[in-house]
Amino acid sequence: MTKTNAGRFFEDYAVGDVIHHAVPRTISGGERALYHALYPARHALYSSDEFARNCGLPAAPIDDLAAFHIVFGKTVPDISLNAVANLGYAEGRFTQPVYPGDTLRSVSRVIGVKQNSNGKTGVVWVRTQGLNQRDEIVLEYVRWVMVRKNNLDAPAPETVIPDLAQSVAASDLAIPDGMTFEDYDFALAGESHRWGDYQIGEQIDHVDGVTIEEAEHMMATRLWQNTAKVHFDATFRPDGQRLIYGGHVISVARALSFNGLANAQMIAGLNAGAHANPCFSGDTIKAWSEVLDKAETSAPGVGAIRLRLVATKGAPFELKGGDGKYNPDVLLDLDYWALMPV
Amino acid sequence: MTKTNAGRFFEDYAVGDVIHHAVPRTISGGERALYHALYPARHALYSSDEFARNCGLPAAPIDDLAAFHIVFGKTVPDISLNAVANLGYAEGRFTQPVYPGDTLRSVSRVIGVKQNSNGKTGVVWVRTQGLNQRDEIVLEYVRWVMVRKNNLDAPAPETVIPDLAQSVAASDLAIPDGMTFEDYDFALAGESHRWGDYQIGEQIDHVDGVTIEEAEHMMATRLWQNTAKVHFDATFRPDGQRLIYGGHVISVARALSFNGLANAQMIAGLNAGAHANPCFSGDTIKAWSEVLDKAETSAPGVGAIRLRLVATKGAPFELKGGDGKYNPDVLLDLDYWALMPV
Amino acid sequence: MTKTNAGRFFEDYAVGDVIHHAVPRTISGGERALYHALYPARHALYSSDEFARNCGLPAAPIDDLAAFHIVFGKTVPDISLNAVANLGYAEGRFTQPVYPGDTLRSVSRVIGVKQNSNGKTGVVWVRTQGLNQRDEIVLEYVRWVMVRKNNLDAPAPETVIPDLAQSVAASDLAIPDGMTFEDYDFALAGESHRWGDYQIGEQIDHVDGVTIEEAEHMMATRLWQNTAKVHFDATFRPDGQRLIYGGHVISVARALSFNGLANAQMIAGLNAGAHANPCFSGDTIKAWSEVLDKAETSAPGVGAIRLRLVATKGAPFELKGGDGKYNPDVLLDLDYWALMPV
Repeated sequence: MTKTNAGRFFEDYAVGDVIHHAVPRTISGGERALYHALYPARHALYSSDEFARNCGLPAAPIDDLAAFHIVFGKTVPDISLNAVANLGYAEGRFTQPVYPGDTLRSVSRVIGVKQNSNGKTGVVWVRTQGLNQRDEIVLEYVRWVMVRKNNLDAPAPETVIPDLAQSVAASDLAIPDGMTFEDYDFALAGESHRWGDYQIGEQIDHVDGVTIEEAEHMMATRLWQNTAKVHFDATFRPDGQRLIYGGHVISVARALSFNGLANAQMIAGLNAGAHANPCFSGDTIKAWSEVLDKAETSAPGVGAIRLRLVATKGAPFELKGGDGKYNPDVLLDLDYWALMPV
Repeated sequence: MTKTNAGRFFEDYAVGDVIHHAVPRTISGGERALYHALYPARHALYSSDEFARNCGLPAAPIDDLAAFHIVFGKTVPDISLNAVANLGYAEGRFTQPVYPGDTLRSVSRVIGVKQNSNGKTGVVWVRTQGLNQRDEIVLEYVRWVMVRKNNLDAPAPETVIPDLAQSVAASDLAIPDGMTFEDYDFALAGESHRWGDYQIGEQIDHVDGVTIEEAEHMMATRLWQNTAKVHFDATFRPDGQRLIYGGHVISVARALSFNGLANAQMIAGLNAGAHANPCFSGDTIKAWSEVLDKAETSAPGVGAIRLRLVATKGAPFELKGGDGKYNPDVLLDLDYWALMPV
Repeated sequence: MTKTNAGRFFEDYAVGDVIHHAVPRTISGGERALYHALYPARHALYSSDEFARNCGLPAAPIDDLAAFHIVFGKTVPDISLNAVANLGYAEGRFTQPVYPGDTLRSVSRVIGVKQNSNGKTGVVWVRTQGLNQRDEIVLEYVRWVMVRKNNLDAPAPETVIPDLAQSVAASDLAIPDGMTFEDYDFALAGESHRWGDYQIGEQIDHVDGVTIEEAEHMMATRLWQNTAKVHFDATFRPDGQRLIYGGHVISVARALSFNGLANAQMIAGLNAGAHANPCFSGDTIKAWSEVLDKAETSAPGVGAIRLRLVATKGAPFELKGGDGKYNPDVLLDLDYWALMPV
């Protein structure tokens, strides 16, 4: 029994700890095909090698969120096995596209700890980096989770709360070497709307909906080698339901956003994110977006657009009630930067 | 809201229009593996590179129907988003095998329009071509759909009904360069019956059945990047059911037909097809075939066989009632040419 | 109707028969990705090309059990279509890793027959070999099944019961050329426990559970081109349930055993196996292991560990009742050899 991983508890984290997460993963066309089977993903840059080459890349990368899920999944046994809640994301940057043949691994550094006043839980902040086989960082993000204490008598550590940016500065967004949208083919991409056609404050209802099945979210979550029991074992929760991995909802919503944001091709930054309410099999997910900001970039023909992406089971454009709490239908509130042809 | 695709309505089509469909797609071994996971596909030419090489091809292509679904899926946002019914197929030809590494896109030309007498809908005929990254046509077919009018005051266009062949002439079937069945390995293919063993009029009950799950048909339909809402959103229909993409039924039936037609390796022509009744999750699909015609070809050892393939929830060999209407159990009535060792 | 495969009956087998099974299969990264989506598989040697190279292999092979299922699936139409029961396995050896690009086929030799006293069924023993495109044996095993007679008047054959080893001798285990665990990275592998840390008799509860869905086991079983009706057709059994392929349970249990046996990387031998009770959709599978034996090997840093792997719907460490019969919760009792860093 002692040979299995019980996960880390709050008292097992100390600021400065570096955790090398297990089980590196080599990507192939298989992961790309499965991503397209599991999500209604249609952004052309990730679907066609030819389209990607026309944008200056050597081939179509795997979807940025697939890379994110792979990096994230590796951290679960070390970071969130005993987590009570996934509290937030910040300072996410996608710094290198990931291609079939690449091998990813994950490393996290503990950058903050704060015991809660109840003495039973605490908050842990980690900065996670995904690295490829050349030890290049492909993406990084800060995440904080509430974790249970195992030994309630363990002393509270000195509180360290990291100073996190409200959003990634547009000037800090990484753009792949050689990338250009100067010869961008709007017809093949699926929509004619360019960066200049979007206004800050504009809201877009992505219209389409997807009803979620148990087999789909479990296959997806397993593909990312995410081991959290609550996603797979119907006997784990008293209500017999399997909680859907929050990242599954992110990918569904992002894919749905193609309809209205087909040219928001590449995710470059992740500013913030909240899993507002749990998602279960049978839920029908819809999505809407709001343009939060826009910025120019140094790459030819490439603009940056900052978007709020909301996944909901209800009507569009309803986010929070008068009490400041998320509407019960809202599943996800994500704030990200995408790259778009100007 | 105006940035999303509302689809085209009947009045938006004019004979001669050429539509370049969006989102090209690069194929890998991933699509092939998924095809084998989603359908009980066992035709050896598509399963083994070694078997394909022995037939004069450079490697195993992806299944002809996978290529068809990919080409078809791209047309949905432009052709059938507002379609009331998918009325028929004709003049389908498979002209180039599709291999991992190929990138497919689709182009359609409007070849016919006819407003219905109710003034609310009309029929649109399109000839769709799938092209690879060398701009070679890999397959083409004519399809006609009934589409709603949006502006009921739009004037009726001049009626143009294309003159379509009842079936593809055997002499018009394309056979891949270098293909030969002279060293065909019947043991590895799974059955000993050759082209000469089938008689025109012969009927074959393929015996096996497959019960369909929501997760399977949705994964398949997404893999083909088919975006029709009715396949994915349980809230779309009043009865809460998701309508299964007709192409999913085609692939299930064709895969089941291995048992009795294991050597009908390659689909070369699509003469006609009707989705006789809708298919829903929980249905158990069985299949039977009837030999409609046979022809010789110029390729060494290769014969052509014309087959009716019927998918049904009921007993074999029952197609239509005395009123000429399809039996309610019949899901699909497909008429195609396959290539077979003589 | 006569063109479909009715399968072989007991009287159709004779000792010495060699059966070349149909439908060779070329493997790609797609099969590997699907394996990781269908099972919670995390053994690093099969997940990362880099990790595999560090162990002296050219790349990450596909999971040993994926190779087993592919070889096994091909035998179903010839061996078990009319089987009443899958009685056992013995003398299983994994002799070559299988890599993307390899093409597998299967050949079986009948090595034993014994008609049952009821005159209606008999037991058939076959030794099956999986071969790659270079005609190298990648794995082999003996399996015996109970098969129905079709012609009850057929004379009983002379009884031949093969002399099978109780287990594969450690000295007979094949270790891939060049394989070494001398630079093994325990952090990347996920656990620190090495061969020397396990004691004969030790039991490990793998803790995690997976609830099975119809779509998952059908996709898996189709991927292996296993055609047994009972897995796919809900109308086949009177109770409307689809029986889950026993190999699906093996793969779920083996993947779950990562938690506690993350370094039992490679399956080298299959000593015995019993599918103790049937498994159906909705069952939640858990797993436990017991160390049966240990042995040194000639490869640098590589030890062999013999494990009992039990899949159960119930509590760990409960196998059989006082009557010697398997506990009704037990699904699988498997006895195998794995290779592990010393």
